[in-house]
Amino acid sequence: MDIHNLIDGNMRVKDAGQEMFRLIERLYPICRSITGNGVRETLRILKEYIPLQVIEVPTGTQVFDWTVPKEWNIKDAYVKNSKGKIIIDFKKSNLSVVSYSSPVNKSLSLEELKEHLYTLPDHPEWIPYRTSYYQKEWGLCLTQNQLAELENGVYKVYIDASLENGYLTYGEYYLSGKIEEEVLISCHICHPSLCNDNLSGIALAIQLAKELTSESTRYSYRFVFIPGTIGAITWLAMNEQKTPLIKHGLVLTGVGDSGNISYKKSRRGNAEIDQAAGHVLKQLNKPHKIIDFFPYGYDERQYCSPGFNLPVGCFMRTPHGHYPEYHTSADNLSFIKIESMADSFVSVFNILDVLEKNRKYINTKPKCEPQLGKRRLYEGIGGQSTQAVDQLALLWVLNMSDGENSLLDIAIRSGCPFSKLRSAADLLIEKKLLTEI
Amino acid sequence: MDIHNLIDGNMRVKDAGQEMFRLIERLYPICRSITGNGVRETLRILKEYIPLQVIEVPTGTQVFDWTVPKEWNIKDAYVKNSKGKIIIDFKKSNLSVVSYSSPVNKSLSLEELKEHLYTLPDHPEWIPYRTSYYQKEWGLCLTQNQLAELENGVYKVYIDASLENGYLTYGEYYLSGKIEEEVLISCHICHPSLCNDNLSGIALAIQLAKELTSESTRYSYRFVFIPGTIGAITWLAMNEQKTPLIKHGLVLTGVGDSGNISYKKSRRGNAEIDQAAGHVLKQLNKPHKIIDFFPYGYDERQYCSPGFNLPVGCFMRTPHGHYPEYHTSADNLSFIKIESMADSFVSVFNILDVLEKNRKYINTKPKCEPQLGKRRLYEGIGGQSTQAVDQLALLWVLNMSDGENSLLDIAIRSGCPFSKLRSAADLLIEKKLLTEI
Amino acid sequence: MDIHNLIDGNMRVKDAGQEMFRLIERLYPICRSITGNGVRETLRILKEYIPLQVIEVPTGTQVFDWTVPKEWNIKDAYVKNSKGKIIIDFKKSNLSVVSYSSPVNKSLSLEELKEHLYTLPDHPEWIPYRTSYYQKEWGLCLTQNQLAELENGVYKVYIDASLENGYLTYGEYYLSGKIEEEVLISCHICHPSLCNDNLSGIALAIQLAKELTSESTRYSYRFVFIPGTIGAITWLAMNEQKTPLIKHGLVLTGVGDSGNISYKKSRRGNAEIDQAAGHVLKQLNKPHKIIDFFPYGYDERQYCSPGFNLPVGCFMRTPHGHYPEYHTSADNLSFIKIESMADSFVSVFNILDVLEKNRKYINTKPKCEPQLGKRRLYEGIGGQSTQAVDQLALLWVLNMSDGENSLLDIAIRSGCPFSKLRSAADLLIEKKLLTEI
Repeated sequence: MDIHNLIDGNMRVKDAGQEMFRLIERLYPICRSITGNGVRETLRILKEYIPLQVIEVPTGTQVFDWTVPKEWNIKDAYVKNSKGKIIIDFKKSNLSVVSYSSPVNKSLSLEELKEHLYTLPDHPEWIPYRTSYYQKEWGLCLTQNQLAELENGVYKVYIDASLENGYLTYGEYYLSGKIEEEVLISCHICHPSLCNDNLSGIALAIQLAKELTSESTRYSYRFVFIPGTIGAITWLAMNEQKTPLIKHGLVLTGVGDSGNISYKKSRRGNAEIDQAAGHVLKQLNKPHKIIDFFPYGYDERQYCSPGFNLPVGCFMRTPHGHYPEYHTSADNLSFIKIESMADSFVSVFNILDVLEKNRKYINTKPKCEPQLGKRRLYEGIGGQSTQAVDQLALLWVLNMSDGENSLLDIAIRSGCPFSKLRSAADLLIEKKLLTEI
Repeated sequence: MDIHNLIDGNMRVKDAGQEMFRLIERLYPICRSITGNGVRETLRILKEYIPLQVIEVPTGTQVFDWTVPKEWNIKDAYVKNSKGKIIIDFKKSNLSVVSYSSPVNKSLSLEELKEHLYTLPDHPEWIPYRTSYYQKEWGLCLTQNQLAELENGVYKVYIDASLENGYLTYGEYYLSGKIEEEVLISCHICHPSLCNDNLSGIALAIQLAKELTSESTRYSYRFVFIPGTIGAITWLAMNEQKTPLIKHGLVLTGVGDSGNISYKKSRRGNAEIDQAAGHVLKQLNKPHKIIDFFPYGYDERQYCSPGFNLPVGCFMRTPHGHYPEYHTSADNLSFIKIESMADSFVSVFNILDVLEKNRKYINTKPKCEPQLGKRRLYEGIGGQSTQAVDQLALLWVLNMSDGENSLLDIAIRSGCPFSKLRSAADLLIEKKLLTEI
Repeated sequence: MDIHNLIDGNMRVKDAGQEMFRLIERLYPICRSITGNGVRETLRILKEYIPLQVIEVPTGTQVFDWTVPKEWNIKDAYVKNSKGKIIIDFKKSNLSVVSYSSPVNKSLSLEELKEHLYTLPDHPEWIPYRTSYYQKEWGLCLTQNQLAELENGVYKVYIDASLENGYLTYGEYYLSGKIEEEVLISCHICHPSLCNDNLSGIALAIQLAKELTSESTRYSYRFVFIPGTIGAITWLAMNEQKTPLIKHGLVLTGVGDSGNISYKKSRRGNAEIDQAAGHVLKQLNKPHKIIDFFPYGYDERQYCSPGFNLPVGCFMRTPHGHYPEYHTSADNLSFIKIESMADSFVSVFNILDVLEKNRKYINTKPKCEPQLGKRRLYEGIGGQSTQAVDQLALLWVLNMSDGENSLLDIAIRSGCPFSKLRSAADLLIEKKLLTEI
């Protein structure tokens, strides 16, 4: 695997941005929830891109403190006013129905209906996204403007949904590397027509999976496409024995908006993934934010629960809840920027590249500097006030390689880009001045 | 014990402020020194408030490197000018006589007299406070304006003081809690008519003692009312075997002026009392100062001497020497603000409340999050962008309770107020999701 | 040894500044390189000041990864234009010839000549300094203005240099102290007529050596006057068994320019020399810079290579490469400021003084403060708001002397000047309140 195949801004990266966007477009119309056919249809499409394994976990399966819920499916839903006009239509927006709503087929007064309606008064043209997974309820979401126009009268509410024993469905793609230790890439697949929250993470994971499949990697990689919370818990419950092999992990979410990149650290706070993300984002020299771990957000909550405490961070752009479009109909295709997708892709790839290439070395000639000149590692005419940066990288690697410092440690101490240090290390190995531990 | 009984700004706190002020008013006229009847009279008054034990340590008792000094008492003192007019009068201000002055009854020229006079040229209307405990001397303090008016002539100086074998007197109040480990509250009682330096600390200690007496506390509490330096040394020498039980301690001094709260850390710098004070003062969200330990100031000097190194900090408002009224007649009743007294009381009570309630817990379901919803710990309709703060507290406590982090550690890491975390922990214990270590 | 002999700004310090400048003036005309008679002549002059031992290491000697090179000597060099006029003259500036140039005696066209000419286009009146130690080359340096005037034609180039088996020459001065552990002072002696880079370090080392010779020191001191890089490597290779005795070290370079002092930390970053330099420079209360270690610069590169990792920092003023005169003819006598030399001398002497006097102590009366008053260590009339600073020093030393903290640790924690703490410690030892570990 080599980041040099992917230079920021080059054609392949632009292509990647567009490919990811096209996948988001395909997945956008599907009504997903934490279980059901929307998830199955989503995974079926993803299988066209990577040979995903689809796992079905039966309703009722105990997963730690949780139980896999019944499967929810919805065929149609609408509300008709007294004139028979459809005023809320699931076919037009699958956000219209609160996820996991019970089936309904009855007439109500406006007052009664209103108890089941959700709007966003601050954004009167947007439909909110609401769920009621673990409480038997039904509800409908609409814009504040629509609500304002509703007149008194009798409304017919029809929700053709089913909540039955079935399965929780998730996808997994395992890519075997040179070593058994693995990198976990996790994204959630449980939201209906929401683009940044949900689809952007899926598309980025698919793009990375495709890219890594064509590379030869040191680490093994495991991509999981799971419903949020219950999916992560189910995966962890069913794969507990594998978790000690997870050396690094990233939750991918909200990677397509126009905001800057944010990296939320793992609970450990100083895991190698945290160091790598911090170093790469600093080196990329774009505004970004490093956020300390907190125990809410996405599925890092589960991976970083105290019984696992896995080194899993969360890569995103604007954090959830910090943009008004979050969990509304405004998180739509136009909210996604192709350049942001491409930038997220390159950035994560860079982070993975650091993990792949990070090593500890021993300087084989640790007493004084080795003579670089006789190995053609040094400029001929000395005395100039500036030295080539690569020579600095050589000197840093030689000086710090006492077996204690990894290349990433050296990168952080020196401020040299990791890639330059790795090139220096490769050259020094070739010249027998360095050996890997 | 519960801080919720005492909400800042409520009637009980205002009452407390006034009670403390009234006590200061009662104690103000008494001429105290490091020994003598002024201290006895002070402790006698304090006994009206709490069942104080009064200890008398004989002159000559060896206390570590020190010896309990002779007892000093003063009945009267004045200076008369050649016309027989009293120009310095102990009855008008007990600051007029240097504490521990030898008895005098003689006539002197103005020039000779001046060698024994102390003034504050920068504050010509204030009388300074001076002592000469360990050096046989006599002296008189007056305002610079008074000094300027003195005319040549013969002055009669009369100091009716005695320095004889007697006792060093101090008070102690021990409040037994559920456990033997204790919190030490220490204040000095050796200054004459000075309000902020001396009386404010006494009044706050009394108020805390009264409040805690009516509560059921986990820790035992020991209040010591001692002469500065020699009193703390005497107490430590006589109670050395008890000091390992002191888990936390506070020296209270200068808590009534209008300045912001300052907390001076213990020598350890990261003791639980230091963390608790830092967290509480931050949460109270008023300007305040955290000061690193330094080996002078009040009796924390003794408690934090290297042979003890007790976790004792110093709670004050404006630090001594940082306000011009310090050790002058201007540190009088009008220098004390009732609101400052009340605010100091609530703040210290908050700090003690944190110490009382701080615990380490173990999450009983550490693998993934437990399902809060089925325990009615979670909002019904999900998907909203904001979560109730208490739920964050639940999540923080669950995530961090791996047996390593105390609730106070979690408060500091999360920025959640300790009290919210403690409420969350109580609820989680009730739901069997947490056990105390 | 005592810094009090040398008060900043006093006559002896001014004299020292002038003495150092006169030595620089004497050494300035000599054409030095990493080997050869210029170095020998330099060391011969230095022997007039201190009884230097001169070591000659034969060409071909293996020193770690390096080989002692052939000895280079130059007698004369010039370039004549087609009219026979000398346009580049070694006699006028020994920077004119690239160091280690091969001998040449031939005629070239202007175009051919230009391939061997070096100038500084940004500083058209300065001659650059260039070397080619390990590559067989020849070259000439001149000003950009001179170059611009060269007309087409045939030029005669004459370099009367020799590169033959010989020796690498360096000087060493060992000053035996009370203990075998030593302080290494290192400076380079391989540059031709350059003042700040090279001569200022030599002059400062000589001045320190003279000063320390007249003192009685605790540590032994080793001064090495060596060619840069190859000299340090040679010294380390030949003295490897002595290096465990090096407890502290300083590379001195560029100590005469008008810039502020910079101290570059050792690779360890928290060595006692790093702490001492940081404390002294802070206390001297002049603008200065503390720089983290990086593995290029001067001979600290070798001393701090991972196989040695000696606690050696680098003391300089403006770091090399940060002033345009660096490695040019403008680094001449007028670039050196006598006051800067004197200031560097006093500052380094202060740092050495701290190392000399740093100790760990045990408070013999660690329980409470000992009574300072009865030992006449305390002011008589108490109650004043300010205390003498020396008393603070006494209290700091007593409080922190638990066997863990050195006097330098206490200086850093307290902000008290080290010298005041040391005076306090001496007094406390005299009073039997302190014992040295």
